[in-house]
Amino acid sequence: MIGGGKGAFIGAVHRIAAQLDGAYELVCGAFSSNPEKSRACGASLGLSPDRVYDSYQELFRQEAQLPEDERVQVISIVTPNHLHFEPARMALEHGFHVVLDKPMTFSLQEALELRSIADQSGRLFCLTHTYTGYPMVKEARQLVASGKLGNIRKVYVEYPQGWLSRFEEGGDNKQASWRTDPSQSGIAGSMGDIGTHAFNLAEYVSGLQVTQLCADINIVVKGRKLDDDGAVLLRFDNGASGVLIATQVAAGEENNLRIRVYGEHGSVDWQHADANTLQVKWLDRPTELWRTGTGYVSSYAQHNARTPAGHPEGYLEAFANLYRNFALCIKAEMEGEKPQKEWQDYPSIEEGVRGMAFIKNVIASGKSDKKWTDFKV
Amino acid sequence: MIGGGKGAFIGAVHRIAAQLDGAYELVCGAFSSNPEKSRACGASLGLSPDRVYDSYQELFRQEAQLPEDERVQVISIVTPNHLHFEPARMALEHGFHVVLDKPMTFSLQEALELRSIADQSGRLFCLTHTYTGYPMVKEARQLVASGKLGNIRKVYVEYPQGWLSRFEEGGDNKQASWRTDPSQSGIAGSMGDIGTHAFNLAEYVSGLQVTQLCADINIVVKGRKLDDDGAVLLRFDNGASGVLIATQVAAGEENNLRIRVYGEHGSVDWQHADANTLQVKWLDRPTELWRTGTGYVSSYAQHNARTPAGHPEGYLEAFANLYRNFALCIKAEMEGEKPQKEWQDYPSIEEGVRGMAFIKNVIASGKSDKKWTDFKV
Amino acid sequence: MIGGGKGAFIGAVHRIAAQLDGAYELVCGAFSSNPEKSRACGASLGLSPDRVYDSYQELFRQEAQLPEDERVQVISIVTPNHLHFEPARMALEHGFHVVLDKPMTFSLQEALELRSIADQSGRLFCLTHTYTGYPMVKEARQLVASGKLGNIRKVYVEYPQGWLSRFEEGGDNKQASWRTDPSQSGIAGSMGDIGTHAFNLAEYVSGLQVTQLCADINIVVKGRKLDDDGAVLLRFDNGASGVLIATQVAAGEENNLRIRVYGEHGSVDWQHADANTLQVKWLDRPTELWRTGTGYVSSYAQHNARTPAGHPEGYLEAFANLYRNFALCIKAEMEGEKPQKEWQDYPSIEEGVRGMAFIKNVIASGKSDKKWTDFKV
Amino acid sequence: MIGGGKGAFIGAVHRIAAQLDGAYELVCGAFSSNPEKSRACGASLGLSPDRVYDSYQELFRQEAQLPEDERVQVISIVTPNHLHFEPARMALEHGFHVVLDKPMTFSLQEALELRSIADQSGRLFCLTHTYTGYPMVKEARQLVASGKLGNIRKVYVEYPQGWLSRFEEGGDNKQASWRTDPSQSGIAGSMGDIGTHAFNLAEYVSGLQVTQLCADINIVVKGRKLDDDGAVLLRFDNGASGVLIATQVAAGEENNLRIRVYGEHGSVDWQHADANTLQVKWLDRPTELWRTGTGYVSSYAQHNARTPAGHPEGYLEAFANLYRNFALCIKAEMEGEKPQKEWQDYPSIEEGVRGMAFIKNVIASGKSDKKWTDFKV
Repeated sequence: MIGGGKGAFIGAVHRIAAQLDGAYELVCGAFSSNPEKSRACGASLGLSPDRVYDSYQELFRQEAQLPEDERVQVISIVTPNHLHFEPARMALEHGFHVVLDKPMTFSLQEALELRSIADQSGRLFCLTHTYTGYPMVKEARQLVASGKLGNIRKVYVEYPQGWLSRFEEGGDNKQASWRTDPSQSGIAGSMGDIGTHAFNLAEYVSGLQVTQLCADINIVVKGRKLDDDGAVLLRFDNGASGVLIATQVAAGEENNLRIRVYGEHGSVDWQHADANTLQVKWLDRPTELWRTGTGYVSSYAQHNARTPAGHPEGYLEAFANLYRNFALCIKAEMEGEKPQKEWQDYPSIEEGVRGMAFIKNVIASGKSDKKWTDFKV
Repeated sequence: MIGGGKGAFIGAVHRIAAQLDGAYELVCGAFSSNPEKSRACGASLGLSPDRVYDSYQELFRQEAQLPEDERVQVISIVTPNHLHFEPARMALEHGFHVVLDKPMTFSLQEALELRSIADQSGRLFCLTHTYTGYPMVKEARQLVASGKLGNIRKVYVEYPQGWLSRFEEGGDNKQASWRTDPSQSGIAGSMGDIGTHAFNLAEYVSGLQVTQLCADINIVVKGRKLDDDGAVLLRFDNGASGVLIATQVAAGEENNLRIRVYGEHGSVDWQHADANTLQVKWLDRPTELWRTGTGYVSSYAQHNARTPAGHPEGYLEAFANLYRNFALCIKAEMEGEKPQKEWQDYPSIEEGVRGMAFIKNVIASGKSDKKWTDFKV
Repeated sequence: MIGGGKGAFIGAVHRIAAQLDGAYELVCGAFSSNPEKSRACGASLGLSPDRVYDSYQELFRQEAQLPEDERVQVISIVTPNHLHFEPARMALEHGFHVVLDKPMTFSLQEALELRSIADQSGRLFCLTHTYTGYPMVKEARQLVASGKLGNIRKVYVEYPQGWLSRFEEGGDNKQASWRTDPSQSGIAGSMGDIGTHAFNLAEYVSGLQVTQLCADINIVVKGRKLDDDGAVLLRFDNGASGVLIATQVAAGEENNLRIRVYGEHGSVDWQHADANTLQVKWLDRPTELWRTGTGYVSSYAQHNARTPAGHPEGYLEAFANLYRNFALCIKAEMEGEKPQKEWQDYPSIEEGVRGMAFIKNVIASGKSDKKWTDFKV
Repeated sequence: MIGGGKGAFIGAVHRIAAQLDGAYELVCGAFSSNPEKSRACGASLGLSPDRVYDSYQELFRQEAQLPEDERVQVISIVTPNHLHFEPARMALEHGFHVVLDKPMTFSLQEALELRSIADQSGRLFCLTHTYTGYPMVKEARQLVASGKLGNIRKVYVEYPQGWLSRFEEGGDNKQASWRTDPSQSGIAGSMGDIGTHAFNLAEYVSGLQVTQLCADINIVVKGRKLDDDGAVLLRFDNGASGVLIATQVAAGEENNLRIRVYGEHGSVDWQHADANTLQVKWLDRPTELWRTGTGYVSSYAQHNARTPAGHPEGYLEAFANLYRNFALCIKAEMEGEKPQKEWQDYPSIEEGVRGMAFIKNVIASGKSDKKWTDFKV
């Protein structure tokens, strides 16, 4: 693991997600750019001191020299955005599989470069767009893909949070500080942090691609350097249209991602706050509540659940699904077997490239007087 | 009553709303442009045949000649949009108070003219933006106005319906036929029918006015002549921004109007599907469920409810609140008394003008390549 | 109308319910045992002074002497329980149809007597068990009756309120005072006031009859004279079992009546707080949300709704459904026609008798050391 | 781990729960009474073959002989009920801490004996009443304990499931087979399997103890040997009363545990289906939604959550909370430190004894003609 030291939210989440199903063991790390902090973190995690490194560069150098059956196999990178590309590049080039937190890189340029490196490396790559790990999100995608809803006409995706309603940065809120800092986050704040999740979900569930967008991007809290709020009109490659909302100044909201996709005959409605239910609505018959853990859901939803219906599975399980599917694919590759299609359903480098293109295009649109901006990769 | 014959949805609603609290008695009507149908309708409603008229022109002529204590006092106009202006004008000019269904007129031009007629007439005027009649919508407005949420930053309003998902017009669905017909509805379809409700609600609850908008307006169902779908980015006079969604092709949706208004410290969230609850969310404390019929709500919410908490009040009661408040104001005027502020809280001609301006501006924006269109009245 | 003067909750509700659909006109009344109050109330309701009476006895005497086409046709009795029997008896014997508030009488003995009087009178009788007027409650009954759920196994009905959590009686809370006073309410408090509603709903939806019960009846608030809380184990005539909860000391609850009926293959779940939704749950497929105003519900549910799906209908509409159906049956009788089966679906004297039997049996069981008490009428 | 081989639901849950926070490592096991199956299971879990045992007896014999720093420290027992006592006894007597699935033993007699063994052993003991591991259940308990709700008056707890609606036993549904078999489950079916959870939750949240009960216990599905349904009237040591429902034939229900506790001033309402919300209702002010992961909840709720508000934590996390708190207490003991009070809040042997007493008393009451049965331990 690279990054994820004290005060990092997502590092701990990655560790739980990885070990939840027992498919990974944490063996080495460079947890902070401060060697002392890295060592303290490694110790608290029970790692052997000789595998806690002062820098990610050293980690790669040393681990690559270990015998193949001892050295680390998969590198998790959980650093702020500006420190995604370089460790990911080195990991792939040293022959390790990579799990990388989103957004994939600091810029679209880096993303394209990383894609080409990954393609050449032959190593596997997983981008942690967590929400696609929820069983009922997978079910939504499958239902759309089945054609039962007819042609898709509308996609509404929204991700309201309230935690940046005040000027939180600059104090000891480490999360707020780096996420609002252009030198660490890149050109986008909320649009990069949560807008990319919403965008990814929209494309994942609908099976469509955005072709044009029209964005209203705002800095609401005085003194903030990056956008903390935005709304985007969307057009998709099949002619459908939609709306994407991402805001971190919606006072009182927790983490209320929601997606609705409407077809000719019916629609799906998934809300993070009730993550184990998929509302399926129809033109002429009762709304149905499809649930995690039941016998009637698709093989994708079944594969990504661990308990019978009525035992809520949450954020950590969704995250763990990414790790588990990635592990199953790595194992299959190692054993020369073809991975099941359900295992391969995790976000990868292509989603990362599109996410970075979203950031570039949405920020450009925000600054443009023209209504529609073409979505260019 | 003018309009509201057989097959008309909203006419029956107006009648129930008017009589629910016993403040009105239906005494005369011109229910259809077809005299036979008008008479049949009048008969079925138990009206005296001599007060069922063949046309609204005749109604005004005849009623105006009746002795003051016999003739009608308030005219309800529930015709399609193209037949709003003329009967409303005549009603005011003949000295009757007017209840008019929304959108107010066929065009903004007519709306401005009607406003000037109404101002000169000294008669009272009520526009039936039903949703502002809900106790918890009134509570939302009061809470925003109280300043407890701080400055308003975001307004999200959405009104998804699914009933026009197919090509319904042209058959015997009278509702679908006139609402999608430019010669009866005007320049807008969904934006006029439900977009104006959403717009009105946004301004009513937030206490703000839209100054700019950016619209994506669509005809989704093949062969339809007016928009059946749209999404609009909004900017308000205090610097807040927002999103308005109005669609009638959201398969599986019923009548799911929802408004969320976010301030610096908290927010309100009202959904038509759970109309007696107002969710009040705060930055640092639990979300609260404010309820119709309780003792802790404002005088506005209390005045507009009839039963103790837990006895659901619905659409007809909300509609009846408009009629009841209008009656209370008329009665106060007749008795030379000052109406209470709670009674005066019904939508009037100013809301009608802004609604018509919304239609004009939103359709113009939909056709424009520029991102932002100024909201002009 | 008899009763329903100032301070009476249910009188006003009856008046709105009766006039909501325009099928009734209030023509006369004896609104209070205090003649002055009665006259003041009549005046405020716009009644002709000569038809506002000082007592119900006088009302019957005078109205019976009016010409048939002038005199009142239906008597609504909305007095406290101890004043139900006598005016109901007189109304029937004077040839009027009767709408009577529940519980039907002061004692089971009176109920049996009233039944025999009603049978002989040939007049129609409606008992206002409001909750059976909700479209989705009717749908629940129809679904059970259709056999689609299989044999019924379990019935859970609960009616928690919180408004008697404190000692409210004795002050100016008129509702609390008479409802907790044995001389006005009878042998039961909560069990009579809301327990009878729950019991009626259980039998109405399940189509079953209670044969045995086991009650825990409590006076929770110190100084109170009648039960304010209770729970009852139930056994039904088909072998099903169930639980009935009725309490008025559940602090924080409004009026949260709920019924769940489970069959071999599925179940129905209706909650007053979400009255326009019927949850239909199945063993092996998704839960369905059946909704008021849709096209797929039964003729009973359709007949008892006024607006399209998504326009919430509430307590007053449910109440109005009782009045409307009663009016339709009276009209059919007057015209010598057979009423439709949907119209006849209103609670009548038989439900009243069973309600009074419930009160007698449940209070007896509460005092008994034996587990099971037979349900005797 | 003892038990938890192929086809066992709860064994896998225990393993995930234990490793979720990285505090446990699975080192040895006797997973099945069939040695071959045990070895296969151990292999699939990646255990060293020399620590996969043919029987639990052998496990204790062998592990006890390993050096202290190599041998297992905590024994998880996840066998059917009839195989709880003996391995638990042996584990304690061999000096191991014990995690035991509920209900604690086959009979109350065994439970009392085990308590005395545990007391003498000085080893720690955890009984996996999972639901007390939810942050919002802990919050409910804390809120009741704070006195803010006033004296507790009512406790309603219900646990409806539908999975035994048909005769599932005898086929290859291993879960159904042993849970309905008196020789493996003991004298109770549903009352032992889920009734004990409901009972435990009632006492845990209310802080009260049941003193009397009156049970209706049923076998609904023909041919079944143990109760699959029941309802129980409860009396508590402070004079409060309540209702407990536990059924496994509620067709369409998943795992819908719910508890409501009412005090003089307010109440708490927790539902498993919305596990991260605690509804707190008050007599005179809005209902509040208290949420996992927020800053305003108690130290107990905060300690038992891993992510910020809005990231749902579910069943596995609740289960993991038990394991984590148990680990923290063991570690504190090993280090001679006093465990924090939040760590000590896990169900222990006392809850196990009361659970077994509940089974004995509730089954006795079910057979009794007397209304009330004293709760005897």
